[in-house]
Amino acid sequence: MELELARELAQEADTKIVLVVMDGLGGLPHPETGRTELETAYTPQLDMLARESACGFTVPVGIGITPGSGPGHLGLFGYDPMKFNIGRGVLEAVGIDFDLQPSDVAARGNFCTVDAAGRIIDRRAGRISTEDSARLVEGLRNIRVEGTQVFVEPVREHRFVLVLRGEGLSEAVADTDPQRPGAEALPPRATSPEGEPTAALVTKFVQLAKKYLANKAPANMLLLRGFAKRPDWPAMGDVFKLRPAAVAHYPMYRGLAKLVGMEALPVGPALEDTIVTLRENWGRFDYFFVHYKYTDTAGEDGDFDRKVAKFEEVDTAIEPLIEMGPDVLMIAGDHSTPALMAAHSWHPVPFMLRSKWMRADECGMFSETELQRGSLGTFEAKEVLPLAMAHAGRFKKYGA
Amino acid sequence: MELELARELAQEADTKIVLVVMDGLGGLPHPETGRTELETAYTPQLDMLARESACGFTVPVGIGITPGSGPGHLGLFGYDPMKFNIGRGVLEAVGIDFDLQPSDVAARGNFCTVDAAGRIIDRRAGRISTEDSARLVEGLRNIRVEGTQVFVEPVREHRFVLVLRGEGLSEAVADTDPQRPGAEALPPRATSPEGEPTAALVTKFVQLAKKYLANKAPANMLLLRGFAKRPDWPAMGDVFKLRPAAVAHYPMYRGLAKLVGMEALPVGPALEDTIVTLRENWGRFDYFFVHYKYTDTAGEDGDFDRKVAKFEEVDTAIEPLIEMGPDVLMIAGDHSTPALMAAHSWHPVPFMLRSKWMRADECGMFSETELQRGSLGTFEAKEVLPLAMAHAGRFKKYGA
Repeated sequence: MELELARELAQEADTKIVLVVMDGLGGLPHPETGRTELETAYTPQLDMLARESACGFTVPVGIGITPGSGPGHLGLFGYDPMKFNIGRGVLEAVGIDFDLQPSDVAARGNFCTVDAAGRIIDRRAGRISTEDSARLVEGLRNIRVEGTQVFVEPVREHRFVLVLRGEGLSEAVADTDPQRPGAEALPPRATSPEGEPTAALVTKFVQLAKKYLANKAPANMLLLRGFAKRPDWPAMGDVFKLRPAAVAHYPMYRGLAKLVGMEALPVGPALEDTIVTLRENWGRFDYFFVHYKYTDTAGEDGDFDRKVAKFEEVDTAIEPLIEMGPDVLMIAGDHSTPALMAAHSWHPVPFMLRSKWMRADECGMFSETELQRGSLGTFEAKEVLPLAMAHAGRFKKYGA
Repeated sequence: MELELARELAQEADTKIVLVVMDGLGGLPHPETGRTELETAYTPQLDMLARESACGFTVPVGIGITPGSGPGHLGLFGYDPMKFNIGRGVLEAVGIDFDLQPSDVAARGNFCTVDAAGRIIDRRAGRISTEDSARLVEGLRNIRVEGTQVFVEPVREHRFVLVLRGEGLSEAVADTDPQRPGAEALPPRATSPEGEPTAALVTKFVQLAKKYLANKAPANMLLLRGFAKRPDWPAMGDVFKLRPAAVAHYPMYRGLAKLVGMEALPVGPALEDTIVTLRENWGRFDYFFVHYKYTDTAGEDGDFDRKVAKFEEVDTAIEPLIEMGPDVLMIAGDHSTPALMAAHSWHPVPFMLRSKWMRADECGMFSETELQRGSLGTFEAKEVLPLAMAHAGRFKKYGA
């Protein structure tokens, strides 16, 4: 659904929607058992919920498309991930909870190694340690560029974020990363006339950074890409007439939620923390995005058994969730992360929605195989919120 | 998926994709048995493949739309058949393997009969024999028109192709076929100023042809329609970073494959020829479009039993295909051709895909009824290639 239509249909109501995102939820069958991670896990509460829910699969972005975390979540928030793009610099800044201002320009940085002639040896400097990287970042923080305030923030391994703050900055600056070893770092060229002042500031920064890094190890140069400003999107609360909150511990997901205007509530890393935060804030909001990261981490690590165990952990949260009495409770994923692939994948993602306005469904378990009989079929993730809105009595009739 | 996005996501990989198109694959149940052609056929290999595959249905163009061969195949090749249109003249030229140059203009011709006043009696001259038609074509080949080279090629029955070759030709010329008996043939009018020189050349040709045909039988006039140039489309190999080849015996399908930039390999008419050609070229390409025509021919002839027999023939090719070790093997159809209708139809088309990255599927047979339980559901044919690309590890992640 287009946001404009959602805005037209949305109405306030005294109902609550909870979206639980198990990151990397979908899996693939283990070659020995023929069962996926979810099918291997003992999850009596999720299975009972499936019997009480309308079930199906979501396609995060499109058929055959493996989404990153950004597009995977935007879809679930009702924002078409093909239209709402987040620049890499912004995603990186958001991922470390950097408080990006509307006029800031952020870029993703890599520490790299270059030879005496300035040609790139390794674009990631052998993925230097987060500690080494943080030390180099400390040095870069001493750089002053007239006409802008400069922030350099460490991320992980060889990665950092560069943020320029000031008046009249533009994201129209090309990457300095040529994306291949043997080439020299590119100058930060403006991609349109309005990018020229910013390109000049970045050029100055790179010159000083180059000088500082010249004799350093294990990295002696940097590369920048994905110059971007924080997008100015319609807020979910305005469009859908909701008071939305995020219960997410990881900065990346808090950041994504904030990009669509959710309030990111403080919450600890454990599942119990999530429940506590939900309970404490239950009255203040009517839409909760609850993020559970560890299913994805296990999948990315290729650890089938740990992913199974993480599902069993989530299972313990279902009863307390139901007890809070949401009018619409959804269990979803931002994408699949099959342990067998040790990576995100394109496979449709298990989904279920419980409300009092549902048809009978024939799914006896929350599992990739059972859900093929689900009454919701396979549909685009960007329709998840409209579906929830309808079930929550928060959409008016279309047409007379 | 838009080709622009495909181009962005595609990456090279050391994997092979095989698409087997059984022309006119889908059918309808026989009134006496309640089983379709595919369900009546004894196809143990296809059924075993179904148990090892992700299954579903493709919608060739759109719900309720009965596709011709062109759109039916373009979708499977990843080209949205609603956007990529082939002019009738081009399709006809391609169908006889005419080597159309980018600046050529082709039109489809009909021999017809007219009365003494020039009014059309029969637009197809009673579907004159291919032999009679070829004789008239021979005569037309003697026509010379200053300013263009003229080719006249026989097709089948009353049909032929006219091709003009030269500089500055345009497809902006209206049909001369008024599409109804009793009317006179229309003059070849330009539909825009740039079509005027071409319209003048066509006028000259028609005048001379009319004179030549005046006293001939069984046809004494001709009609032209669908003036078109060969489309200049992005090549499949460039967009999807593949080396694509077609293993198709019939000129029409070779031509369609060539329009999207595939190499059309020489191959004989028998199924064994297909296997031999595949084996011989296995190392040179990483995408193979394999075309099997005879299921459609039987369907078009309304011959239920022969269509059944043709499925049983294809079944013998499955083992050799699997032995070649494709990373992705797909069995698909360009459209349905139910023998009961003796024509193409709009019904969704059985589809299956085998790779190592699949979920369990509950389809025990390759049949219209069983496939309704398939994990892929019913999806647009234009998503077939993106799906294969994902399963072949040939698509990068979308967004960070």
